[in-house]
Amino acid sequence: MTEQNHEQNYGRLIVWGADRPGIVANVSAVLAEHGANVISLDQSSSGPEGGRFFQRTVFHLPELSAEIGALSRSLEANLGEELGLEFQLVEARRRKRVAVFVSRADHCLLDLLWRQRRGELPVTVSMVVSNHPDLGDDVRQFDIPFYHVPVDKDDKATAEREQLNLLKDNVDLLVLARYMQIVSGDFLDELGVPVINIHHSFLPAFVGASPYQQAKERGVKLVGATAHYVTEDLDEGPIIEQDVIRVSHRESVRDLQRKGADVERLVLSRAVSWHCEDRVIRDGNTTVVFQGGQ
Amino acid sequence: MTEQNHEQNYGRLIVWGADRPGIVANVSAVLAEHGANVISLDQSSSGPEGGRFFQRTVFHLPELSAEIGALSRSLEANLGEELGLEFQLVEARRRKRVAVFVSRADHCLLDLLWRQRRGELPVTVSMVVSNHPDLGDDVRQFDIPFYHVPVDKDDKATAEREQLNLLKDNVDLLVLARYMQIVSGDFLDELGVPVINIHHSFLPAFVGASPYQQAKERGVKLVGATAHYVTEDLDEGPIIEQDVIRVSHRESVRDLQRKGADVERLVLSRAVSWHCEDRVIRDGNTTVVFQGGQ
Amino acid sequence: MTEQNHEQNYGRLIVWGADRPGIVANVSAVLAEHGANVISLDQSSSGPEGGRFFQRTVFHLPELSAEIGALSRSLEANLGEELGLEFQLVEARRRKRVAVFVSRADHCLLDLLWRQRRGELPVTVSMVVSNHPDLGDDVRQFDIPFYHVPVDKDDKATAEREQLNLLKDNVDLLVLARYMQIVSGDFLDELGVPVINIHHSFLPAFVGASPYQQAKERGVKLVGATAHYVTEDLDEGPIIEQDVIRVSHRESVRDLQRKGADVERLVLSRAVSWHCEDRVIRDGNTTVVFQGGQ
Amino acid sequence: MTEQNHEQNYGRLIVWGADRPGIVANVSAVLAEHGANVISLDQSSSGPEGGRFFQRTVFHLPELSAEIGALSRSLEANLGEELGLEFQLVEARRRKRVAVFVSRADHCLLDLLWRQRRGELPVTVSMVVSNHPDLGDDVRQFDIPFYHVPVDKDDKATAEREQLNLLKDNVDLLVLARYMQIVSGDFLDELGVPVINIHHSFLPAFVGASPYQQAKERGVKLVGATAHYVTEDLDEGPIIEQDVIRVSHRESVRDLQRKGADVERLVLSRAVSWHCEDRVIRDGNTTVVFQGGQ
Repeated sequence: MTEQNHEQNYGRLIVWGADRPGIVANVSAVLAEHGANVISLDQSSSGPEGGRFFQRTVFHLPELSAEIGALSRSLEANLGEELGLEFQLVEARRRKRVAVFVSRADHCLLDLLWRQRRGELPVTVSMVVSNHPDLGDDVRQFDIPFYHVPVDKDDKATAEREQLNLLKDNVDLLVLARYMQIVSGDFLDELGVPVINIHHSFLPAFVGASPYQQAKERGVKLVGATAHYVTEDLDEGPIIEQDVIRVSHRESVRDLQRKGADVERLVLSRAVSWHCEDRVIRDGNTTVVFQGGQ
Repeated sequence: MTEQNHEQNYGRLIVWGADRPGIVANVSAVLAEHGANVISLDQSSSGPEGGRFFQRTVFHLPELSAEIGALSRSLEANLGEELGLEFQLVEARRRKRVAVFVSRADHCLLDLLWRQRRGELPVTVSMVVSNHPDLGDDVRQFDIPFYHVPVDKDDKATAEREQLNLLKDNVDLLVLARYMQIVSGDFLDELGVPVINIHHSFLPAFVGASPYQQAKERGVKLVGATAHYVTEDLDEGPIIEQDVIRVSHRESVRDLQRKGADVERLVLSRAVSWHCEDRVIRDGNTTVVFQGGQ
Repeated sequence: MTEQNHEQNYGRLIVWGADRPGIVANVSAVLAEHGANVISLDQSSSGPEGGRFFQRTVFHLPELSAEIGALSRSLEANLGEELGLEFQLVEARRRKRVAVFVSRADHCLLDLLWRQRRGELPVTVSMVVSNHPDLGDDVRQFDIPFYHVPVDKDDKATAEREQLNLLKDNVDLLVLARYMQIVSGDFLDELGVPVINIHHSFLPAFVGASPYQQAKERGVKLVGATAHYVTEDLDEGPIIEQDVIRVSHRESVRDLQRKGADVERLVLSRAVSWHCEDRVIRDGNTTVVFQGGQ
Repeated sequence: MTEQNHEQNYGRLIVWGADRPGIVANVSAVLAEHGANVISLDQSSSGPEGGRFFQRTVFHLPELSAEIGALSRSLEANLGEELGLEFQLVEARRRKRVAVFVSRADHCLLDLLWRQRRGELPVTVSMVVSNHPDLGDDVRQFDIPFYHVPVDKDDKATAEREQLNLLKDNVDLLVLARYMQIVSGDFLDELGVPVINIHHSFLPAFVGASPYQQAKERGVKLVGATAHYVTEDLDEGPIIEQDVIRVSHRESVRDLQRKGADVERLVLSRAVSWHCEDRVIRDGNTTVVFQGGQ
């Protein structure tokens, strides 16, 4: 339910931390005190004792924009100070600003832009940045700025500096939509917002380069794609979503690439959508993904 | 998590009715008052206004068996009388008693018995009843009583009377595991417990007899199975679970039956498992299925 | 393997008719006599006696364009006259000319155009025709002609006449990519080329209008899409491809439409691709689809 | 079509080797000369030049048992000596004799035995061998011999010697149905028949021990199973079949094991079935699997 009119006065509250009795009741009580009506609530624990607690709540609160500050202070007092929990409180109507990095392959990029235009993705795509100029025309047809930032393999720092100038404080999420360059740890640190990558294999199978070539050589019967948060360790970040498609010995590496491309764009669009609806919580090197609720 | 030791002092509370603000907080408060710790909570609404509300909560409460009466009275006062909601409160350790009706096909029956023996299905299979004697030996190897109740097509009432004598007050659920007889509305009324059927097609496609034959003739590219609650209207009851498998023109009706059999047993075992974990709520002619939580 | 350079001198031979001993050997012998090398061969029979025979052969023959006439005459003599079989002989390099009919929903149309541009679909999209002007800009960005032919519900014949003027002799296939109008039997007869439609349900479930609404009301746990050849009987033509996606009670009709849209575009693109690679043979009201080979 | 009466006088011919023009015609001609009628033919090449050729043909030949020797000599002369191809010629009615090795987990074993009894698997299970006595009763209920051969981890050679005494010349295939011991290269060499293993992960992800534990730790969103031929390199042999099932963060390692068990038994039964229908050809470290035909 991403429609503008449905989002007015809807809030999302994500709570996580060490599990202990009474958290759900506590959160519910704070929301009720402020006049919020719980629309959907999804909660889970990693175990009965010594476990971690995760809760995603969607609520409706008249005059949410005016009330959100007071609600946040109550939550801080009740959850943060008293229970040692962390939380995130957002207005559903504030769409996340997203930058997309891409190289030459267009399928993931165009799928994201088309879904956004169609109203399926609750985001604002602020810009597309590429190390190649090829996709500029396609992007600008969506009335989205396109920046060509070439990457010199002997001086990546210069390109990263230019990228950071474009992104810094302007985006809430960076999506690597088949961006064939490694981003440095320094870049991630300085950027300070989550980064989602699509890897063209079912991780942890076939890390690194040319996964379809590797898949062909190993003779697998399914190929897949993985969307994950980017960390300094290449292809090792927390997985958000994965899917696969059946292949046979008859198919060439190029056939695998084509079939895989359909999986890549579906998997990436799901991961971006879920992240932007605040459904994904990192839990160490894994993720909690809340599928239910609005 | 169906293990015996994990179930001690765990309760499940299912609440449903007309949606209104504050239900979640109210339920949480009652549970907290009684010292119950919420382990998982899954809640959804069919819409923001005039919608229906559904909540499944798993909680831990020391001495649950002693406390459950008092808790039930509090819920009745707070949810039933005050808010007009319905609820169901069960101890997880009380396994549902299940009877299975079967004809000659063994695949769904044996899968249920094998899963129960393996500890995957949190049920007690009290008896198997068949209109044919064929599967008696297979059933008794699991130390489960088998009753042969022949059905005379001109006098079904006699067989149903005998079946009711076996079942009445002895079971919490009846599963039709490829039972090739229609059960009457009177039988359903008098039995008074839910009945789950497996239909060997992706309903509402191919209702009635010989669905694989129908599927072959229509030339579909997927065949499926549907587990649903039985109502007086054949193949029209609320659907609990469905799945499909890919087929091709090369496959004969018999091949479809074989491939479909694998889907049937998976779909039926999921539906029975979910029902017995109190994850399924009927909502008119559809179902709410809570996949999360314990 | 749809690349231009791979298609030069490649031919496809499709043979079908009443099964009898020796057909494969006969076809092989004719091809060998003409110097053709069989690249892939996929053959099946509907049964050992009284069955129907289907064979798809891809072969390489130097100077195919010059030789194809002589080869066709040999096949006619050996298969047609002697064995009473039907056959179709095509050069792989001759791409089928495709027209697309669309109304307002863009997802199936854009997916086809994008796949064609990407080199995934071995077709030439000659034109797009719509009863609404909305998608004109999107289509023309692909350098493909767009024609707006309004349909007056009280005078469909006029629109069909105009459509036939555009299509007649200019296309080898018509694709209805979510075209929300019924085409008449007269139109189909006069057009004289195959027509593929995408229906937004898993046929034969939910024929007719508003299948996602019907699906929501029936409470199904999977929604699907079906690509089929169009016959005079609405939604009853031979099925080429189907697929499904899992849904839950939480999802609204609009959510089903969105999830279903992803299935629709995949299913339609597969069906068009297979048809244009001469992989699909009609067999009564069903289809034989050869998945193997080039 | 594994029924006895359908198999009489049906033969299967598998041909493989370096691709060159005319092989299909040559094979067809030899079969035709001997009066064989081709029922189904599935053929593929790994590439147009320098590729490898694979063909599986099912044919009907009256008095096959009497004629098979002569047919084999003709094939040897025409394919082996002249074209340098390898081939395998079998009578469909001769069911492969299969031994199953198992440890304590029963799901894969029971599924194979149940499918065989049901007529789904065209094999004769000659014996079950286990390093534990636990499953003896279950096996003997199927009237199949069960042998307990304990394995001393400091003297595996003794156990392998005992196993070889049981197997040697008595079986055509060995299936490791969750056998938790490594078999040595010497054992494989001496046994001299193919060995199929089920690995409880989507290889090459999670090789080695405790794949579900590894999967939980990596936070994957799908778990799978892989059936492969056993070679000296653990988990590295040619893959025959794979499949996956969706999981979420809510599921424990034990839940993954349970869901995975359903995938394991399906994947293993498909692999064994295909192998025993002569549908699988090894091609280096990959496999060609012919899905079509009888």
